[in-house]
Amino acid sequence: MPAASREVHLIARPEGMPKPSDFEVVETTVPDAGEGEIQVLNLYNSIDPATRPRLSLQPLATPPWGFALGRVEQSRHPDHREGDIVLGMYGYRERYVSDGRGVSRIAADPSLPVSVYLHAVGGSGFVAYGGLLEIGKLQKGEQVFVSTAAGAVGSIAVQVAKLRGCYVIGSTGSEEKCRWLTDELRVDAAINYKAVPIRTALKEKAPNGIDVYFDNVGGDHLDAALPRMNPLGRIPVCGMISAYNSAGAISAPVTTLSNIIYNRVTIRGFVSADFMHLRDRFTTEMEGWLKDGSVKYRETIYEGIESSPAALIGMLSGENIGKTMVRVAAGV
Amino acid sequence: MPAASREVHLIARPEGMPKPSDFEVVETTVPDAGEGEIQVLNLYNSIDPATRPRLSLQPLATPPWGFALGRVEQSRHPDHREGDIVLGMYGYRERYVSDGRGVSRIAADPSLPVSVYLHAVGGSGFVAYGGLLEIGKLQKGEQVFVSTAAGAVGSIAVQVAKLRGCYVIGSTGSEEKCRWLTDELRVDAAINYKAVPIRTALKEKAPNGIDVYFDNVGGDHLDAALPRMNPLGRIPVCGMISAYNSAGAISAPVTTLSNIIYNRVTIRGFVSADFMHLRDRFTTEMEGWLKDGSVKYRETIYEGIESSPAALIGMLSGENIGKTMVRVAAGV
Repeated sequence: MPAASREVHLIARPEGMPKPSDFEVVETTVPDAGEGEIQVLNLYNSIDPATRPRLSLQPLATPPWGFALGRVEQSRHPDHREGDIVLGMYGYRERYVSDGRGVSRIAADPSLPVSVYLHAVGGSGFVAYGGLLEIGKLQKGEQVFVSTAAGAVGSIAVQVAKLRGCYVIGSTGSEEKCRWLTDELRVDAAINYKAVPIRTALKEKAPNGIDVYFDNVGGDHLDAALPRMNPLGRIPVCGMISAYNSAGAISAPVTTLSNIIYNRVTIRGFVSADFMHLRDRFTTEMEGWLKDGSVKYRETIYEGIESSPAALIGMLSGENIGKTMVRVAAGV
Repeated sequence: MPAASREVHLIARPEGMPKPSDFEVVETTVPDAGEGEIQVLNLYNSIDPATRPRLSLQPLATPPWGFALGRVEQSRHPDHREGDIVLGMYGYRERYVSDGRGVSRIAADPSLPVSVYLHAVGGSGFVAYGGLLEIGKLQKGEQVFVSTAAGAVGSIAVQVAKLRGCYVIGSTGSEEKCRWLTDELRVDAAINYKAVPIRTALKEKAPNGIDVYFDNVGGDHLDAALPRMNPLGRIPVCGMISAYNSAGAISAPVTTLSNIIYNRVTIRGFVSADFMHLRDRFTTEMEGWLKDGSVKYRETIYEGIESSPAALIGMLSGENIGKTMVRVAAGV
C-alpha cells in the first residue's frame, strides 16, 4: 500500500557550518514495491561527517547523502524478505522504494541491539578497523594517536588499538568526552584540544612519538602530529573534518610536511572499499568484542526525521558523543 | 706523506638562504694513512639540497654534510687500492683520511666520465629511479609531474618516466631550463613556475590529472598538485626545498590535503635506504641509458674547494642547471 513518508531536503548551499534553514522537511508518498523492488521503512538514519563535503556538490531539493538502517516492509525482490534488516544509501528519509541497488541485507546478531550495525559493526567501525590495521599497518605495542577520538569512528579506533596492546592518545573537544575516553575506553592519554593547543598537548602526551596517527581532522591536528611521527610512521587519513565546512575543502594550513622525509612517513587517504576483504573477519571480531564488553560505545540519538538537520549540525559542532543517529521509526 | 688540504667550515648558523660569510676556508694537514686506513683526494664535491636543513643542526666549525667522489692516494686498508675511485661522506674538503666507514668503492665504467657516478649513476639518479619506481609504483603510460625537473634528481626522474612511456610534466624556474626539459629531455610539458602560478599552470598542463607527483619542493607545488591527483595517485616525497631555508623546516602552507581522501592518494617520504635492493639493477640500467644516449645530463661545475659556498647558494637559489658540483682537484 502506498505509504506517507517524509524526507529532509537540502534547499540552500551552506557556507561554513550548515544552518537549520538550509534544510526543509518534505512530505511525500512512497509507492508500493513493484516487481523486483522492495519498500523499506528506515529505523535509524546515520549522521556522518562525510555528508558535509557532499552538501557542497549535491543537487538542491534532494536528500543529503547518508546511510540508514531499515526494515523491509514489502518485497517483490528475490534477495529480500519482509522483516529483513537492511543497510541502504537512503538516509534523511522515512521510507523508500528500491530495486535493491545500494541496499544490503544485515545478518544481525539477535543478542546485539540492531543499531550497532549502523556504527560499531557498521561503516564507522569498519573504517576504524581497516584504516588502522590495513592502511595504518598497526603493530602490537605501537604509539597511536587518534583525533575525534570520542566520535563514532575514533572511539572504535582507540579501542581496536588498545586491544592490540598499543599506547593510545586520543583528542576530543570537551572534558566530559576526555573522561569517557580515559575512564571507559581505557585510552592512555586524552587531550581536550579546546583547552590546550594540540601541538603543546601532543608534546607532553606523546613522549615516545607517534607510530600511527589515525587522522579524522587534518589541519592543525595533522600539523601538530607530523613533527612527532616516528621513523616509518603511518598516517591513515579517514577524514579531514577541519576542511569540511570551508569552500573548496580548504583545511587549516599544514606547514610541517617536511618531517615526512627523513622519517619516511606515509600519509594515505582511504575509503573502506580499499579493504573489503577484511569485512567478514571484522564483523565476526567486532560482534565478539561487543558481546564480551571489550568494545564499548555510546549513541547520541535524535528523535524523528525532522531532527536530522539538528543532528548533523550537532555532530559537526562536536557537541555529540559516540555515534550520532536519528531514530526515524518510533518504538524500535 | 702528510698532505696540505683545505676544508670549508660552517661558521655561522644561516637564517634563510645561506650567505658566503656563513662559511670559511680552513687550511689543514691530512696525515698519512695509518694501518687499516686510506687517504683520499677528492675530485668532485657533490652539492645537494639536503645539505641545507643539516646546516641548521650540525656543529659549527665543521664541514657541511655532503658526498664527494675521490681517488685513493694511499691505502693501508684491505678493501681499497691506490687509484681506486671512491664515494665518501666527506664533502666540502680536498683530502681526508678514513678507516673505510662511509666510503664505498665505485666500479666506474671507463667509457663514462667519472663525474656521472656523483649524479646520474649516483645518489641523485638513484633516488629519482627508486622514488618513481618503488615508492611511486610508476606504471607504464601514467601521468607524471616532477618538480625541480631541471635539477640533478628531477632531470633523471623526468627521463626515467619518459622511458616508461609516461606523459611527463616538469616544473622549473626559468625559460632556459624549460627549453632544456622540452627540447633535450623530451618532457611533454614544462612549467616555468616563476612566470605562471603553479596552480594555474598545472590546470592547463595536466589535463588528464596526475597519477604520480615526484615532489622535491613541497609547499605551493604540493598544494597545487593535490587537487589534480587521480584516484590512487602516489606522491613520493624526495625533498621539500621550499622548507629548507626556513627555521624549523616550515614550508609554505598546504591547505588542499583533504583531496587525498576520496581519491585515496598516498604521500610518502623516503630515502634511498628504502630500496637498496634496486641498486645493482639501477646501476646497470642507468649506465646503459647514458651510453646509448637515452638519458642526458648537464653539470654546473664550480672550480676549487673555496667555491663550495657559492655553489651551494647558487643551487639553492635555482640558478643552476642539472647537477651542481665543485671540481676539487684540477685536471680530472
